[in-house]
Amino acid sequence: MIDARGPGIVPRMTIGYSAQQLFSKRAKATGPSFLREISVVSQQPGIISFAGGLPNAKFFPVEPILRATEKALREDGRRMLQYSATEGHAGLREWISNRYQKQGLDVTPNMIQITSGSQQGLDLAGKVFLNPGDNVLIERPGYQGAIQAFSVYEPNFVGVPVQEDGIDLDALKSTLAARSIKLMETCCSFQNPSGIAYSESNRESMSALISQHNLAVVEDDPYVDLRFMGTSAPALRHYLGDRLVTLGSFSKIVSPGLRLGWMVAAPEIMVKVNIMKQATDLHTSQFAQRVLYQYLVDNDVDAHIAMMCGVYKHNRDCMLAAIKKYFPPDVTYTQPEGGMFMWCTLPSEADAMALFEVAIREKVAFVPGPIFFTDGLGKNYMRLSYSNVDSQQIDDGIQRLARALTEQLDGAHV
Amino acid sequence: MIDARGPGIVPRMTIGYSAQQLFSKRAKATGPSFLREISVVSQQPGIISFAGGLPNAKFFPVEPILRATEKALREDGRRMLQYSATEGHAGLREWISNRYQKQGLDVTPNMIQITSGSQQGLDLAGKVFLNPGDNVLIERPGYQGAIQAFSVYEPNFVGVPVQEDGIDLDALKSTLAARSIKLMETCCSFQNPSGIAYSESNRESMSALISQHNLAVVEDDPYVDLRFMGTSAPALRHYLGDRLVTLGSFSKIVSPGLRLGWMVAAPEIMVKVNIMKQATDLHTSQFAQRVLYQYLVDNDVDAHIAMMCGVYKHNRDCMLAAIKKYFPPDVTYTQPEGGMFMWCTLPSEADAMALFEVAIREKVAFVPGPIFFTDGLGKNYMRLSYSNVDSQQIDDGIQRLARALTEQLDGAHV
Repeated sequence: MIDARGPGIVPRMTIGYSAQQLFSKRAKATGPSFLREISVVSQQPGIISFAGGLPNAKFFPVEPILRATEKALREDGRRMLQYSATEGHAGLREWISNRYQKQGLDVTPNMIQITSGSQQGLDLAGKVFLNPGDNVLIERPGYQGAIQAFSVYEPNFVGVPVQEDGIDLDALKSTLAARSIKLMETCCSFQNPSGIAYSESNRESMSALISQHNLAVVEDDPYVDLRFMGTSAPALRHYLGDRLVTLGSFSKIVSPGLRLGWMVAAPEIMVKVNIMKQATDLHTSQFAQRVLYQYLVDNDVDAHIAMMCGVYKHNRDCMLAAIKKYFPPDVTYTQPEGGMFMWCTLPSEADAMALFEVAIREKVAFVPGPIFFTDGLGKNYMRLSYSNVDSQQIDDGIQRLARALTEQLDGAHV
Repeated sequence: MIDARGPGIVPRMTIGYSAQQLFSKRAKATGPSFLREISVVSQQPGIISFAGGLPNAKFFPVEPILRATEKALREDGRRMLQYSATEGHAGLREWISNRYQKQGLDVTPNMIQITSGSQQGLDLAGKVFLNPGDNVLIERPGYQGAIQAFSVYEPNFVGVPVQEDGIDLDALKSTLAARSIKLMETCCSFQNPSGIAYSESNRESMSALISQHNLAVVEDDPYVDLRFMGTSAPALRHYLGDRLVTLGSFSKIVSPGLRLGWMVAAPEIMVKVNIMKQATDLHTSQFAQRVLYQYLVDNDVDAHIAMMCGVYKHNRDCMLAAIKKYFPPDVTYTQPEGGMFMWCTLPSEADAMALFEVAIREKVAFVPGPIFFTDGLGKNYMRLSYSNVDSQQIDDGIQRLARALTEQLDGAHV
């Protein structure tokens, strides 16, 4: 880098410098992110995207957020622009605590750490719990962001299948018996990617198995409030108590752009979380926290969530109808009662990675199954998100996807 | 956790569960944070605090930020509340790039990652570069936040002293010759904690030594714009080019509460940074980024910085005058030309940790030296911040501190 406008200094780079050699083992192990490529491709004009797990932007509370910002800045301007406490805004933590208390869960504000989205909660859990080589039990399929976040701490992933009503209990039992598991990650309410919710009896049996062993459980729980039909099972915290670390998020119920989530953990864990959070970024944006707090205090967020649930229910119904209408009959799929995702099982000869290329030519995007597996498998699955599209797009998009799928399957049969 | 209002489920906790056993090596190694205690104590009513490195809240641009938020939300509301690109807001990255270009530095937007404060840049650098046991060269005294951030990745710290004009070149030379250093961390413009700035000749000689070895250099650079007297040396990037990773921040020039900073690195490093950033928190608050971008476009930030510099220069002069007036003559101190900190060397029999307790009784706070050393030494140093106090507080506070110091030194002489 030699620049004529600079002081004429030529940087000395020549002697044996190689960034590639200096990278950490974890950095060397990561290749280019296929999900990132998907995300870029999916945003091309004309593409109908069922790929990203994006909330529906049409319904973001733009005006209420503006009013909240005005009020917060007028009341508390200097404070919200200054450095603040690592654990997060006190009012916001109390608001979250109250919400749990209403469900009969004894979550006190000192058990809450505000995070930059629930994704950061995964990073902090990795920092607090994981040594290289530790066994991490992960759902199969599992949330790709959790795989990414934990991978930084170089664990060994052990997959346990999820089924229509929750985790495969036999597989869980034998896995816990066979190996020493340090941490289990679960997304038991409208799982990403499958959309399924663990039933009450599955939660109970799973917890009974877990309680026989010394492991912590991280529950990634951003979709729990997005139930649009059926009835809720009791929260996992009722069964697992202090060994449960729960990651919540405002991304799906208010706005992801604020980048605000939280972590619930027992005080003895929270001591370590706080130190790790301070080391990571001192604290989460106080500006965004204070604005969100004002929004929550001045608005009926439950009414907002109910409205969003109505939209997602409608979209889910449209997608199920379109799938029934256009997809080959040997494609099976989950029928979620909440959340943003549907999980399709394609005929065994299908290859979702190759299908993605065909689908893009047909101007429709989804996320191929292998992204959600740590063992390279999952090629005949795909995740479809119905949250950030409308009914017309759903009908058109599923039709295009059916065309791509038929094209691939016909090719495979040749 | 048994809650009568819950579904009457008693969590099964009894069989061999121990969070303490499950913590990672890094988490087990961290004790309670003394800095955190300092921060809590320093905020007690009546205490004059020279402890925290806080910008002066009196001058935060509250009204301009409000106008920027209104404009941004009206123009771009849905987009700024949605998920967004991991690398950060395109306009903001371009603004930062332009600022470097004006200094003759060929920093293109694709070399910029928006971070949640420059602290997050340290975490990302740790993720990208550090394996356990890697040697990290750090200034002595060095920034406590860098020590904390890197400690997560379990390196071996090697300290090299900083002096009035920069790093100790002889010590640097022998250290680089004796050990394989993976990463060097420096804060060469108004260093935290010492307040010193590396001279032009020190930067040149340091860079010449570094260029003989295969290591990366992380420059923590949040104070560079806060020069209030003297002349700037050329930017380190002129000498070190692509092996330099620079961490910038809006915390000291606009507001820390927004929690926005950036990282500059060569494209080959940026590929890895991007993957690690995505794993850590997907992206930094788009809401805060878009507001800041609007603020920067609509306001004269250089005029704002010049005003802040005037305040800090005045405070620095007041503090030097008060020190001269009240401190024992055998206390020496740096005379910074910018930034927010002054570094005092106490007589060798002083103990800054014990002094802190006495000072709190006298209602004045500072940060004791040992916080800034990785080897447990530094007991006869203290860091004083003059940024978030006024001239009256400075005069009173230094008088109180002189009293505490005299009390301790007299006690030591008994």
